[in-house]
Amino acid sequence: MKFSGRITDMQQSPIRKLVPIAEAAKKRGKKVYHLNIGQPDVKTPEVFFDALKDFDKEVLAYSFSQGSPELLESFSSYYKSYGIDFDPSDILVTNGGSEALLFAMIAICDNGDEVLVPEPFYTNYNGFGNVAGINVVPITTEAEKGFALPPKEEIEKIINPKTKGILLSNPGNPTGAVYSKEQLNIVRDLAKENDLYIIADEVYREYIFDDFPYMSFAQFDDISDRVIIIDSISKRYSACGARIGSIASKNKDLIAQVLKLCQGRLCVPTIEQLGAAALAKVPKEYFEKTKEEYKQRRDIVYEALQEMPGVVCELPHGAFYIMAKLPVKNAEKFVVWMLEEFDIDGETVMFAPAEGFYATPGLGVDEIRMAYVLNQESLKKAMNILKLGLEAYPDKK
Amino acid sequence: MKFSGRITDMQQSPIRKLVPIAEAAKKRGKKVYHLNIGQPDVKTPEVFFDALKDFDKEVLAYSFSQGSPELLESFSSYYKSYGIDFDPSDILVTNGGSEALLFAMIAICDNGDEVLVPEPFYTNYNGFGNVAGINVVPITTEAEKGFALPPKEEIEKIINPKTKGILLSNPGNPTGAVYSKEQLNIVRDLAKENDLYIIADEVYREYIFDDFPYMSFAQFDDISDRVIIIDSISKRYSACGARIGSIASKNKDLIAQVLKLCQGRLCVPTIEQLGAAALAKVPKEYFEKTKEEYKQRRDIVYEALQEMPGVVCELPHGAFYIMAKLPVKNAEKFVVWMLEEFDIDGETVMFAPAEGFYATPGLGVDEIRMAYVLNQESLKKAMNILKLGLEAYPDKK
Repeated sequence: MKFSGRITDMQQSPIRKLVPIAEAAKKRGKKVYHLNIGQPDVKTPEVFFDALKDFDKEVLAYSFSQGSPELLESFSSYYKSYGIDFDPSDILVTNGGSEALLFAMIAICDNGDEVLVPEPFYTNYNGFGNVAGINVVPITTEAEKGFALPPKEEIEKIINPKTKGILLSNPGNPTGAVYSKEQLNIVRDLAKENDLYIIADEVYREYIFDDFPYMSFAQFDDISDRVIIIDSISKRYSACGARIGSIASKNKDLIAQVLKLCQGRLCVPTIEQLGAAALAKVPKEYFEKTKEEYKQRRDIVYEALQEMPGVVCELPHGAFYIMAKLPVKNAEKFVVWMLEEFDIDGETVMFAPAEGFYATPGLGVDEIRMAYVLNQESLKKAMNILKLGLEAYPDKK
Repeated sequence: MKFSGRITDMQQSPIRKLVPIAEAAKKRGKKVYHLNIGQPDVKTPEVFFDALKDFDKEVLAYSFSQGSPELLESFSSYYKSYGIDFDPSDILVTNGGSEALLFAMIAICDNGDEVLVPEPFYTNYNGFGNVAGINVVPITTEAEKGFALPPKEEIEKIINPKTKGILLSNPGNPTGAVYSKEQLNIVRDLAKENDLYIIADEVYREYIFDDFPYMSFAQFDDISDRVIIIDSISKRYSACGARIGSIASKNKDLIAQVLKLCQGRLCVPTIEQLGAAALAKVPKEYFEKTKEEYKQRRDIVYEALQEMPGVVCELPHGAFYIMAKLPVKNAEKFVVWMLEEFDIDGETVMFAPAEGFYATPGLGVDEIRMAYVLNQESLKKAMNILKLGLEAYPDKK
């Protein structure tokens, strides 16, 4: 039996495909520090769980396709706290940021259309592209330049009549890069001059360090009809398992079109929406505290990497990821080797090989993405294991 | 700003698009009996809610992309109770039956490929087709023949190299029809002779009346590599708001391919899976009781319809829907009129106009789908309102 080309062409998630190897290592008694996936250890606010207990209906009925009124109101007030003016009617609740991304792509692209994405990028962008028959065209950026966008003229060269939008995450996954105002202006101008949408994945909005100036694409009033904001409670509130995200835009027609997709899948889970709506009660201090914790973790990881011979990485200013070039021939092989053959006192560490974050063949082969989502003591141990692992690894450059 | 052709071409859900008109009627103080949507009033088993209370983790983390081991085990044992042999590894948990359908289509079809579907069909099949760039090609069936499939030769005529599968719901939504063994054999033979997949949407498996013989496509051993079973807890356990479904197949390669799609959206909500896994504890008597209740409701609706002059409908043997041809020129206009201009003592009733369930233009214009999901007293009142509404309606045939 044959399968479709689009599904056989899909790569396995580089974040998840090595999980069976890690599971096998654990079965053999090894402890694995998981820096391979953005699953934070931060506590989910208790108001989420408390709200679930309030559910007192006898029938677990469908919710509204656009999301429950309470959750839409909650998202709207969250945005207002950032000076972003989204009414509840400008927002649709989705099954995580994932569905929001897929719906945004489908709304603006037909089969064979193109979306530009700064590379390296969140690997599932490619997967959604496959599903939707959209070509994800990379705008290559470099670790040595802090993953900044290339000059406008460079990007213009790859725009053609099939290009419908620019998709970017800010702060960036997997880079941790935060775009400057000047960089965002380039994207704004490109969108205006070439009639493009901007799909802005801003799920890491809370995690920007070093007083680095930040601006949301929702704050560019002159292009509000071109901007689609993708959001999620996953990272913000350490609630990845809730799978609650959103798509927001001042373009009313766009929201009306995407609502049809929402109706097609009926609704997002009723109970998870109840918990998510309660998160509006979480005080700003929660974010401050979490941000400070992530900053300290970033410093631990970054400083440790600076001490490792042959490792190249720039200081990232946002999210909770760090990309590093390792002195190995093939980072995926190294990650597997760390799981299968290396340990310090029965402990090892797991990363995401970065090749899957690139669309251009050959790029990222010697890079890894680290998610600093563990406590500081664990991170210190993990960095020590990485250092000793690199020293012991036979297949170096 | 332009949108993609595939999204602008999408019709609004015929089940949901009239909701604002119903809401407006309610705001004016009218009571509306909702027979327009398959949202049962049956109580969700308490074990679902009890299981949620057992969640004792501090972090709401991602679940496995394929679904939690407990839920996969629970689904496997559910199938075994029907004599269907699906291991946990043959099953993937999805965001409702909706996502299972979309994933199945994507796995077997590239853009422009075709899937045959007996018409009238669950309207969202069309929506998923739009999203995935797949042509849903109707096999027209008729109310007067109990929506039975046409002869094999008729169906063969519309099969071409782009045809990749046959999708059908059994028992049928919106028809309530249950396919006989002979009918299923036709589909089996067509699949074998033309190298097609069978996507079998069996979410109403529990609701088959009158001792009508039933067989799941999963019980055809000679085509097990061609069969993809779509399932959902929504109707079975009156848990529509949980959005927990599944895709199951003995074709291991297919499951491996679809797992990549599952990885792309990371996972299904963690907490809803917890509740769903507990449903394995629900005794068979729950289904027996619910089935008997639906049967009585069907009888009330069917008998009432028989008494209405000019109404045509056949006795359906499954699910909880009934299709009826009304003596009106346009059923959608009639549904709107019932909401906006008609009431009996401040009460009216709402149906789904059936035109949206057909792909062939012009069909179903004078038909409605009724979901008998309300208690018997309410149904009797609703049928009386329909009868009087039809008498009073000015735009009759």
